[in-house]
Amino acid sequence: MKLSEIAKRFGGELYRVKEDIEIKGLKSLSSAKEGDITFISDKKYIKEAQSTLASAILTSEKLDINIPQIIVKDPQKVFYRLIDILFPEEEKTGISKKSSVSDRVKTGKDVYIGDFCVVEEGVRIGNGVKIYPNCYIGKNVTIGDNTVIYPNVVVYRDTEIGKNVIIHSGAVIGADGFGYYKEDGVHKKIKHIGKVIIEDDVEIGANTTIDRAVVDQTVIKRGTKIDNLVMIAHNCYVGENSILVSQVGIAGSSKIGKNVILAGQVGVADHITIGDNVIVTAKSGVGKDLEPNKVYGSGLQAVEWSKWKRVMFYLYKLPEIIKSLK
Amino acid sequence: MKLSEIAKRFGGELYRVKEDIEIKGLKSLSSAKEGDITFISDKKYIKEAQSTLASAILTSEKLDINIPQIIVKDPQKVFYRLIDILFPEEEKTGISKKSSVSDRVKTGKDVYIGDFCVVEEGVRIGNGVKIYPNCYIGKNVTIGDNTVIYPNVVVYRDTEIGKNVIIHSGAVIGADGFGYYKEDGVHKKIKHIGKVIIEDDVEIGANTTIDRAVVDQTVIKRGTKIDNLVMIAHNCYVGENSILVSQVGIAGSSKIGKNVILAGQVGVADHITIGDNVIVTAKSGVGKDLEPNKVYGSGLQAVEWSKWKRVMFYLYKLPEIIKSLK
Amino acid sequence: MKLSEIAKRFGGELYRVKEDIEIKGLKSLSSAKEGDITFISDKKYIKEAQSTLASAILTSEKLDINIPQIIVKDPQKVFYRLIDILFPEEEKTGISKKSSVSDRVKTGKDVYIGDFCVVEEGVRIGNGVKIYPNCYIGKNVTIGDNTVIYPNVVVYRDTEIGKNVIIHSGAVIGADGFGYYKEDGVHKKIKHIGKVIIEDDVEIGANTTIDRAVVDQTVIKRGTKIDNLVMIAHNCYVGENSILVSQVGIAGSSKIGKNVILAGQVGVADHITIGDNVIVTAKSGVGKDLEPNKVYGSGLQAVEWSKWKRVMFYLYKLPEIIKSLK
Repeated sequence: MKLSEIAKRFGGELYRVKEDIEIKGLKSLSSAKEGDITFISDKKYIKEAQSTLASAILTSEKLDINIPQIIVKDPQKVFYRLIDILFPEEEKTGISKKSSVSDRVKTGKDVYIGDFCVVEEGVRIGNGVKIYPNCYIGKNVTIGDNTVIYPNVVVYRDTEIGKNVIIHSGAVIGADGFGYYKEDGVHKKIKHIGKVIIEDDVEIGANTTIDRAVVDQTVIKRGTKIDNLVMIAHNCYVGENSILVSQVGIAGSSKIGKNVILAGQVGVADHITIGDNVIVTAKSGVGKDLEPNKVYGSGLQAVEWSKWKRVMFYLYKLPEIIKSLK
Repeated sequence: MKLSEIAKRFGGELYRVKEDIEIKGLKSLSSAKEGDITFISDKKYIKEAQSTLASAILTSEKLDINIPQIIVKDPQKVFYRLIDILFPEEEKTGISKKSSVSDRVKTGKDVYIGDFCVVEEGVRIGNGVKIYPNCYIGKNVTIGDNTVIYPNVVVYRDTEIGKNVIIHSGAVIGADGFGYYKEDGVHKKIKHIGKVIIEDDVEIGANTTIDRAVVDQTVIKRGTKIDNLVMIAHNCYVGENSILVSQVGIAGSSKIGKNVILAGQVGVADHITIGDNVIVTAKSGVGKDLEPNKVYGSGLQAVEWSKWKRVMFYLYKLPEIIKSLK
Repeated sequence: MKLSEIAKRFGGELYRVKEDIEIKGLKSLSSAKEGDITFISDKKYIKEAQSTLASAILTSEKLDINIPQIIVKDPQKVFYRLIDILFPEEEKTGISKKSSVSDRVKTGKDVYIGDFCVVEEGVRIGNGVKIYPNCYIGKNVTIGDNTVIYPNVVVYRDTEIGKNVIIHSGAVIGADGFGYYKEDGVHKKIKHIGKVIIEDDVEIGANTTIDRAVVDQTVIKRGTKIDNLVMIAHNCYVGENSILVSQVGIAGSSKIGKNVILAGQVGVADHITIGDNVIVTAKSGVGKDLEPNKVYGSGLQAVEWSKWKRVMFYLYKLPEIIKSLK
């Protein structure tokens, strides 16, 4: 793609462009080499921009540096769209004969199933679905159009997966929830016959686990994005367009609203309701319902250990100190 | 199963039952439809009970609502047992020819090994064991009767697994412990030749990891239940009937007692001893030995961020504030 | 190996040795049986040493107990080296015909590829590499000499793996980073075309995930050791010889120095720089850059719950209490 084509496509203006070169790669300011295009998202990176080796830069205003520029409204977004255009998804179709696909599976058009997958009976697979090698798809699972399942994913029986879902390697969808009742001093397993429902446009990170419900369903609503190593327990409900960052854990039957952000390593207790548009900052523990449209937190900041030891010393003495003050 | 049969089986009493209908499904109060049976575990759910669409309800006392009822002592437990009866485990036997099972493997009766498993030499598999597809069972592993191993589980060599154990997908049992010694400024690996021993009736969640010992063994005692994404390091010992909730981490050589509950995201340092019947609340850090029969905690509750920022501000100043007060 | 050989090899001195026996196993003080050798690392274990059933003990000074001893400078290190000598890595070569290895793969000498692996086109595999069953190696991945990849590992395309690297089961290297931009109220995926670079002598624990960069690279430098269930996000850089303990999470674009230790369950926010030789204690949250050569922390210690509840009560009231004091 030539600089002029990029400018045309995104309504940009060429500046200090002497030669209408062909772009070969996309890189950050510091990694770019000759033939690459890069972008500047904020004026504070002007120094890196001055020393970049890129052959062109996307910017929202003209920069007084000697490098060909394309002036666009949102350079970062244009950069991301250029990636999509220049690196399209690979075409892959065909069902490997090295896989075990039950005769009782319905598959749409242009489906790819890689080697050594097992697809059990009653599974329905939409058009354009890609299932990479070594996956296991349990009985009666449904998979919507254009969903991509990367290698070594396990989907337990009865799970419903929507369209345009992406599931990364090692994710486990629909394992039994963690439920027992005590009898004669031992834990008796509660059999889980519920399911998991993943709606359209959800992305699920590597090695994340989402457990099936006891008798109802665990639900991830449309457009929600889940990072790696996240745990979502049985009977949870996660609303639309929410963001669950890595290593978040949500205990059983909790209900997360729409457009919620749970930052890294947040833990949510069971039977909690978190309102829409809530942000919970990293490492916080949520043990009570949270009202919508607010930011919550309880994570602590690492400081020098010698200082922290003294802080802890007084923290644990706080009740006595305050009592003696009174 | 008809309502009269359920009542008979669990010593229950029919109330407001006009027709002895056949139960088709089990659901919660809010999800139940016609043909389903549900249960009420506590009077506080009476409103949901009034509006349920279920065709029958298990309850511990007669409810003044217009729905057929079965009066039993513990409705929730009866509900769970009904699941077991109405949804028995699927029968699965036979060793797939698409798997690689060494000639030097001993298998009991009614064993199921799914496609694309590798079972190395010296493995001994008891009666009724189910190993789902894409599992790897290393050399000399032993697996007791009726144990179920779900797809994509890895069991490293020499691991001993008891009877009636359930291992969910993605779990990794017996990987090397995280041990090094420093020499000439670099970390030299300590070779781990110990093993993991999982006793009877243990359940292990999806993507949980339990590392092998250096030369001795990592032990999970009978009846202990482990949730998803839990980490148990080399040389740990977890006593009988304990509960390790999701994302718990236990560092090397720690010893957890019987009937212990470690709630979600708890971390236990290395070489710690936790006494029997201890409960540690969610997100707590255990850096010292804990006495038996007590509840411990150090997890914080998320509050509004503006408030939390002020709390943190003063928390970190606590040593100076107290000094100036003195 | 006889006691005299061990003494000779490590420059040790025999003491109270009556018979030059052959050592059959290596165990800890408490687990050792007849025929085993053990070691004592510290005088505080003298009581266990007195009651050990081992046939010989490695010690740094003569012990007044009735058991054959080998006096060496660093008994623990000698013990670890004995493991290496007595339990050499198993020899394994040959590429399984049950795997799918593209014609366009270059393999070195003495390579082992187990059953049901998929190795895509353009992969280059060095000498002595072992890839255990059920692994997926994406397009154009490079793997250096003597690297070992355990079962069920997934390596996404373009990843570069150095020499003598060990990757444990369930690890996922090179999945897409967690990056989106918002448009019309929904999260649009940022396509990740960058890569992961793992340098020589790195070890990666079970079920750990390391995400690929957007356009540049996520880098793990030489000699760094990573435990199980660790998350390293897109565009991170981890310096040489660092230690990341289990369940650590590092958010996008953060830069960890050399010889850093992040203890268990530490979380690091995005775009953070941690200096060389820093230690962060378990469960701490790192939200600001950390200076080199210092110890940092913010993790709390579990105490009795009744006490902790009171501490929390006053903690959250701290701003008002201090205000009223003023």
